[in-house]
Amino acid sequence: MSFVARCLATSAIRFAKEATTISTTCKFAPVVTVAANNFARHFSSFPNGLIFRQLFDQQSYTYTYLLADEQTKEAVLIDPVIELVKRDVNLINDLDLKLVYALNTHVHADHVTGSGELKKLHTSCRSVISEVSGAVADVKVKEGDTISFGKHSLKVLSTPGHTNGCLTYVMYQDGKAVMAFTGDALLIRGCGRTDFQEGNSSTLYDMVHGKILSLPPTTFLYPAHDYTGQTVTTVGEELKYNPRLTKNKDEFITIMQNLNLPYPKAIDRALPANLVCGLYEVEENKG
Amino acid sequence: MSFVARCLATSAIRFAKEATTISTTCKFAPVVTVAANNFARHFSSFPNGLIFRQLFDQQSYTYTYLLADEQTKEAVLIDPVIELVKRDVNLINDLDLKLVYALNTHVHADHVTGSGELKKLHTSCRSVISEVSGAVADVKVKEGDTISFGKHSLKVLSTPGHTNGCLTYVMYQDGKAVMAFTGDALLIRGCGRTDFQEGNSSTLYDMVHGKILSLPPTTFLYPAHDYTGQTVTTVGEELKYNPRLTKNKDEFITIMQNLNLPYPKAIDRALPANLVCGLYEVEENKG
Repeated sequence: MSFVARCLATSAIRFAKEATTISTTCKFAPVVTVAANNFARHFSSFPNGLIFRQLFDQQSYTYTYLLADEQTKEAVLIDPVIELVKRDVNLINDLDLKLVYALNTHVHADHVTGSGELKKLHTSCRSVISEVSGAVADVKVKEGDTISFGKHSLKVLSTPGHTNGCLTYVMYQDGKAVMAFTGDALLIRGCGRTDFQEGNSSTLYDMVHGKILSLPPTTFLYPAHDYTGQTVTTVGEELKYNPRLTKNKDEFITIMQNLNLPYPKAIDRALPANLVCGLYEVEENKG
Repeated sequence: MSFVARCLATSAIRFAKEATTISTTCKFAPVVTVAANNFARHFSSFPNGLIFRQLFDQQSYTYTYLLADEQTKEAVLIDPVIELVKRDVNLINDLDLKLVYALNTHVHADHVTGSGELKKLHTSCRSVISEVSGAVADVKVKEGDTISFGKHSLKVLSTPGHTNGCLTYVMYQDGKAVMAFTGDALLIRGCGRTDFQEGNSSTLYDMVHGKILSLPPTTFLYPAHDYTGQTVTTVGEELKYNPRLTKNKDEFITIMQNLNLPYPKAIDRALPANLVCGLYEVEENKG
């Protein structure tokens, strides 16, 4: 772990700890109270017949998710990383799966997507991204669309604020949300930055509260990144302990305006590549 | 991710890929055949009422596992890392849990255990390690013992070979093994090294095949480390794809004799500390 990353992790931990002692003043306080009483007692279960693997890129701290139907073997990958496509393909082959979609939650600035490489290796695979992202993809989706694989499906929610095209993919079981893949909209005890691409703190606050933190408190939330070694959270936890999103909107915007984060080191390579499934002048970078 | 780590990861991926094309000649071949037909279709579910979190240390590539009972809130941590105790304690507090045990799978050589620090912060916490390890702990366990928290329990299996005191903790649901925490005995598409401490390749081979890979093919296996960003595997996958353990015993021993791994950089600090719950001359290293 790099020194910078360890500092980030330590800061995040401290920030999270401090947040537990701060009284919640945001307009969603009643929901917070309900969640705090229930979320630790009734955690969701994974959907029946779902194969699920969480994968990590130790360079960009990105989580890639493999989901598949046990019966039909149809599989999707959420947020694959180009350097790790071989790892992901090995796992897909080992589990005897058929990759049907490579989904991106948004146009990433910190790594190049593996969508294009996956399409080369799995002819059944189609790339998916938000239609408002402006990126090239086989399937362009919008709010309310559904991505199906076997008996399972992911519902598409538009959750802009980090970028205009940010999506959250939600999986339901018996009509109830049980898992959501939040991209950079919501991170564990944090959220994506809003100071580049089409970032907008006000929009992010409204989208996260209105569409993600309004899911059942037991819903598992799987982010696109974590810098502290955590793998998952729940709606209930973030409603109670997210050090930024438990604040009111004005306080949230002030926090986001004062993060003073460095220029993303991979952005100049990643953005143009990610607008075309990761295959723009990146041949020399393949893993 | 360091250059060395990325090289290790790349090698592991290549090794795993090659293994898929090698015919299996080990004495467990009949079991492999059965597993290959079934393991991808019938994955285990998590036990009802279990809170489960997988946590990662990006410096030593160690996985720490938090398991707890939803009703009683009693919790255990498997293989905590001293620098990340504050992260783990924050999560335990956020989830309103009561830590009752800090378990170590063995005397680690690559990081210092967080057991001692956890005991300082949670007076209810007792440290646990194998009695044959020679280490100090509140509870010393052996083959067949059980560690209980709420309605859940972990059965202790003695799985030496990486060290004499290596343990695997197995969780059952309705009498069937569903999860096993394998420490360094079995890693995803790999295994722990056998060239220091009390390492013995022959013993490791027998223990892993006899006690871990003989569990049901659907059993989830959670290792103490992964260097490739993978988080979990199953008995069925390792029976079919583990590039070392699908070999016969003589071939396995030859592989292990020729790994030519570097001297573990943290061993001189970690071993004396881990023999006393991680609190030996490590005050300056606390996270």
